[in-house]
Amino acid sequence: MTLNVYLSGEIHTDWRQDILDGCDRAGLDVAFSAPVTDHEASDDCGVAIMGAEADKFWHDHKGAKLNAIRTRRGLEQADIVVVRFGEKYKQWNAAFDAGMAAALGKSLIVMHGPEHQHPLKEVDAAALAVVETPEQVVQILTYVERGTLPG
Amino acid sequence: MTLNVYLSGEIHTDWRQDILDGCDRAGLDVAFSAPVTDHEASDDCGVAIMGAEADKFWHDHKGAKLNAIRTRRGLEQADIVVVRFGEKYKQWNAAFDAGMAAALGKSLIVMHGPEHQHPLKEVDAAALAVVETPEQVVQILTYVERGTLPG
Amino acid sequence: MTLNVYLSGEIHTDWRQDILDGCDRAGLDVAFSAPVTDHEASDDCGVAIMGAEADKFWHDHKGAKLNAIRTRRGLEQADIVVVRFGEKYKQWNAAFDAGMAAALGKSLIVMHGPEHQHPLKEVDAAALAVVETPEQVVQILTYVERGTLPG
Amino acid sequence: MTLNVYLSGEIHTDWRQDILDGCDRAGLDVAFSAPVTDHEASDDCGVAIMGAEADKFWHDHKGAKLNAIRTRRGLEQADIVVVRFGEKYKQWNAAFDAGMAAALGKSLIVMHGPEHQHPLKEVDAAALAVVETPEQVVQILTYVERGTLPG
Amino acid sequence: MTLNVYLSGEIHTDWRQDILDGCDRAGLDVAFSAPVTDHEASDDCGVAIMGAEADKFWHDHKGAKLNAIRTRRGLEQADIVVVRFGEKYKQWNAAFDAGMAAALGKSLIVMHGPEHQHPLKEVDAAALAVVETPEQVVQILTYVERGTLPG
Amino acid sequence: MTLNVYLSGEIHTDWRQDILDGCDRAGLDVAFSAPVTDHEASDDCGVAIMGAEADKFWHDHKGAKLNAIRTRRGLEQADIVVVRFGEKYKQWNAAFDAGMAAALGKSLIVMHGPEHQHPLKEVDAAALAVVETPEQVVQILTYVERGTLPG
Amino acid sequence: MTLNVYLSGEIHTDWRQDILDGCDRAGLDVAFSAPVTDHEASDDCGVAIMGAEADKFWHDHKGAKLNAIRTRRGLEQADIVVVRFGEKYKQWNAAFDAGMAAALGKSLIVMHGPEHQHPLKEVDAAALAVVETPEQVVQILTYVERGTLPG
Amino acid sequence: MTLNVYLSGEIHTDWRQDILDGCDRAGLDVAFSAPVTDHEASDDCGVAIMGAEADKFWHDHKGAKLNAIRTRRGLEQADIVVVRFGEKYKQWNAAFDAGMAAALGKSLIVMHGPEHQHPLKEVDAAALAVVETPEQVVQILTYVERGTLPG
Repeated sequence: MTLNVYLSGEIHTDWRQDILDGCDRAGLDVAFSAPVTDHEASDDCGVAIMGAEADKFWHDHKGAKLNAIRTRRGLEQADIVVVRFGEKYKQWNAAFDAGMAAALGKSLIVMHGPEHQHPLKEVDAAALAVVETPEQVVQILTYVERGTLPG
Repeated sequence: MTLNVYLSGEIHTDWRQDILDGCDRAGLDVAFSAPVTDHEASDDCGVAIMGAEADKFWHDHKGAKLNAIRTRRGLEQADIVVVRFGEKYKQWNAAFDAGMAAALGKSLIVMHGPEHQHPLKEVDAAALAVVETPEQVVQILTYVERGTLPG
Repeated sequence: MTLNVYLSGEIHTDWRQDILDGCDRAGLDVAFSAPVTDHEASDDCGVAIMGAEADKFWHDHKGAKLNAIRTRRGLEQADIVVVRFGEKYKQWNAAFDAGMAAALGKSLIVMHGPEHQHPLKEVDAAALAVVETPEQVVQILTYVERGTLPG
Repeated sequence: MTLNVYLSGEIHTDWRQDILDGCDRAGLDVAFSAPVTDHEASDDCGVAIMGAEADKFWHDHKGAKLNAIRTRRGLEQADIVVVRFGEKYKQWNAAFDAGMAAALGKSLIVMHGPEHQHPLKEVDAAALAVVETPEQVVQILTYVERGTLPG
Repeated sequence: MTLNVYLSGEIHTDWRQDILDGCDRAGLDVAFSAPVTDHEASDDCGVAIMGAEADKFWHDHKGAKLNAIRTRRGLEQADIVVVRFGEKYKQWNAAFDAGMAAALGKSLIVMHGPEHQHPLKEVDAAALAVVETPEQVVQILTYVERGTLPG
Repeated sequence: MTLNVYLSGEIHTDWRQDILDGCDRAGLDVAFSAPVTDHEASDDCGVAIMGAEADKFWHDHKGAKLNAIRTRRGLEQADIVVVRFGEKYKQWNAAFDAGMAAALGKSLIVMHGPEHQHPLKEVDAAALAVVETPEQVVQILTYVERGTLPG
Repeated sequence: MTLNVYLSGEIHTDWRQDILDGCDRAGLDVAFSAPVTDHEASDDCGVAIMGAEADKFWHDHKGAKLNAIRTRRGLEQADIVVVRFGEKYKQWNAAFDAGMAAALGKSLIVMHGPEHQHPLKEVDAAALAVVETPEQVVQILTYVERGTLPG
Repeated sequence: MTLNVYLSGEIHTDWRQDILDGCDRAGLDVAFSAPVTDHEASDDCGVAIMGAEADKFWHDHKGAKLNAIRTRRGLEQADIVVVRFGEKYKQWNAAFDAGMAAALGKSLIVMHGPEHQHPLKEVDAAALAVVETPEQVVQILTYVERGTLPG
């Protein structure tokens, strides 16, 4: 049965593509979903479709709600939710997604560097795996699907 | 019927006490719960009770899980969850709590300054109210319980 | 055990008070909740607490969300939801509450005059009782609590 | 993965077909469902199959319950529920469907003209998008599926 | 904590009173609820409050729905549901209640004589206890609350 | 999308086959499931596979539980549950299935002759349609899938 | 708000009483529930109330189901479930309770000696705390209720 | 519709393959899932992918959580959960899986020899079938799918 995986969080590096490529090379039966990663489209989608707003709060509000249609569907249909925290920015939407995933009972994998270990301890405590690299995610998905380990 | 309110997030200012005092002065029937706000106890509770860890990751892990016993009970029993984002730190646990509250269908109130408006847009989009001050929270709780507005 | 009853819908006549008085006279053990019925407060609560809006849509939006904190709590805690449709106005919020009550599995009582029978047929079809007067609601609550019928 | 969309509400204009045609032109992977839009069949289905009723209330009751088999299945299987309010009639069934969609946690899109803004404020407050035209719905579905914006 | 027990089924003998008396003598902390056991009131409640019906089907329909307000509340709030099948009548409502109790995950106790063993095998298979007498129910409630056995 | 229909109840006439044939002739996209209708196999399946029992109660118990594996799966996967009450026997398992279907929120269609109207009033009150013949079920399924009425 | 704690597992030492005494000394607001710990009563309750069985399997079956009425209520009403594995016996019921607690989303505390660390790794992985002594449980409950640490 | 079956428990004999072969010979439409049965991979998966641990507890913890991703998905997607207890070892993970399956409302089949009857009585009491051999499981799956009995 196809494994459904939602890839949440950081959108400034190629980590999603690295995971897709790795699973592709391994020949795994995985279907990925993700938020819209075009930063500009994601910020402006609300006003582009539903009309301009004078106030930045409502500009963002319309966009965030539109993005939520895609995001929540991805979270709800996933077997596994991978949330990556990058080096920069507040990334509160990533932590918010992790909280939703935990409350929905999804298997949560958190990816981040050692510099974020302490502030992410509550998020990590809700996860079934904490990793640093896309390759480790591919190894986990391979193990979950086939029971085989790297090397 | 007593209104159950969970006060999540920032622990370095007196905002929780301000809300409690305001509701007390107004004579509202509200019961508050909150995470442990003694920063040191919160960080070290796991090893203090269950034994030291050589590795900082597991030191934090034991503590974060112990705190989760209290946190999740507070979230699950709440009618309303107030999450405050302060000026400093990553505060990913606050965003994580907001995500859990949203997925559990709780009424979410988010409190933060204007400087955090853009990075908090996804969290704000899931809220029923976005405010800046404890006084506004007291006004909301007064309105929810009694239907009266300030001054 | 106290019966929890939410009284949704029309706010321009005294039907809620009639039901309260009737249950009081009958000595029933019922706890009532209801939306804020002060029309002006209900319309302006959002901007009164969280700041003015230039755009009427967002003025209403802030108020409607604030009212939802009270409304959804009332619906979720109720054993029985009574929804009254009056003679005037669109009253879409009443029908919206009835839809929520039905989806939450609440016992639904709908109150309206014969002139609204046809357009309310889908709402009536989801109800366990369809009545015209507050007195009938009191009779139903008396029967549910004590098993006795009028006169 | 196919996006399931339920199209609830007004049945006197071609808005459903406009959305279907737009999605078809865009080549989206969407499956639509809807209530029976043949007004006469919808009104009389109950008595046509299960026998005539002398009383108009029960005539309507039998029909409304039969239609509920289709309607609730459409709502429950949908990822997104679009509810359109037209210019005429009470349309309480549309608001009822919106309430059910909200309580079931569905992504809700509301479509109506500016003249209905105030009486629909509670319904709009539960929505993730409020639009005026079928074309905007097509643009939203395109964005949700592909992340691309119009023009 | 008070044990909530719903007593469903046969209404022509004193079995409910026997259980109440037995628990009273034993000093147990149990709260009982039950359907309306006045047969005539139960049959006519709908038309008595909401108006006469020419057709027996709708006469019964209005009453059955009104009784459902009380019945479903009793079932939903119960920790334990006791369903008794007597010697006479079809008693399909008793079996219907047992099915609801099973689907709601309630602890089900079924009471019937040996003559009904075979036709009740599916109901018994969903029960945690199958007994013949009110005294056995009292003994079970005593054991559940105190851990003590008779004699 | 294929309509999943579970056909519960009476096993001594050909009503299931009549519905299947009718849907087949109409070219509907319906998938049917049902309990095992071979009476002897249904009664003895438990002991045939898991060993004989001296006591009739446990003989029946083992069989009823084994049948529950199939029955509950059918109920849980169904969009629509049709329950037929025939002229003879206690048929408590049919009423039990109807109670489960109601508690699971399934669309319930009840089929029975006029002689059973009064004792089935609670079951009928939970149904979205009450019919007498297989042909009416086919007409309902046709209407639900296509919106067309007979003749 | 009173903390509800269910104490599952080993019944041959005084660990439950040690926890009760410790919480009593600390003055905590905790309500405890537990299975029947009188081994003989627990084994024979089914036949004592509902009649003897020739076959040991059914003797045990009747008792286990009766005990389940108490056990499942305790688990479902608990905020925290403590499961202790002692030094002897199979204790599969303890692990079964832990699995139920995990699936019900309860906060799970597991208590066992170091000799059982490896075979309990799956159970420990689902827990929010793993301890060895009753005193540690008292310290955890104190921390959850008051935020204070020992010493 | 394909029957989804999860095969939990003992990993030292060929019982899973025996069931697969039997269903294959019978031509049943069944999809099986199972934990990773390579004992060494199962024990070391966590550290192999996420890095070594000095402490055996955390070595096991990382592995147990990784295995939980696969195990819980298998349990949640199953229609039927078969749990086998072998002759040796503690097998607490098998009992834990059985508890989860029971709480999730899955149809549970328990397989064990007569020597484990008494200590498994609580697990057996939650099952819909208790068997000793893989062949009996194949016979049950055949009966559930086709309604036919052996021989």
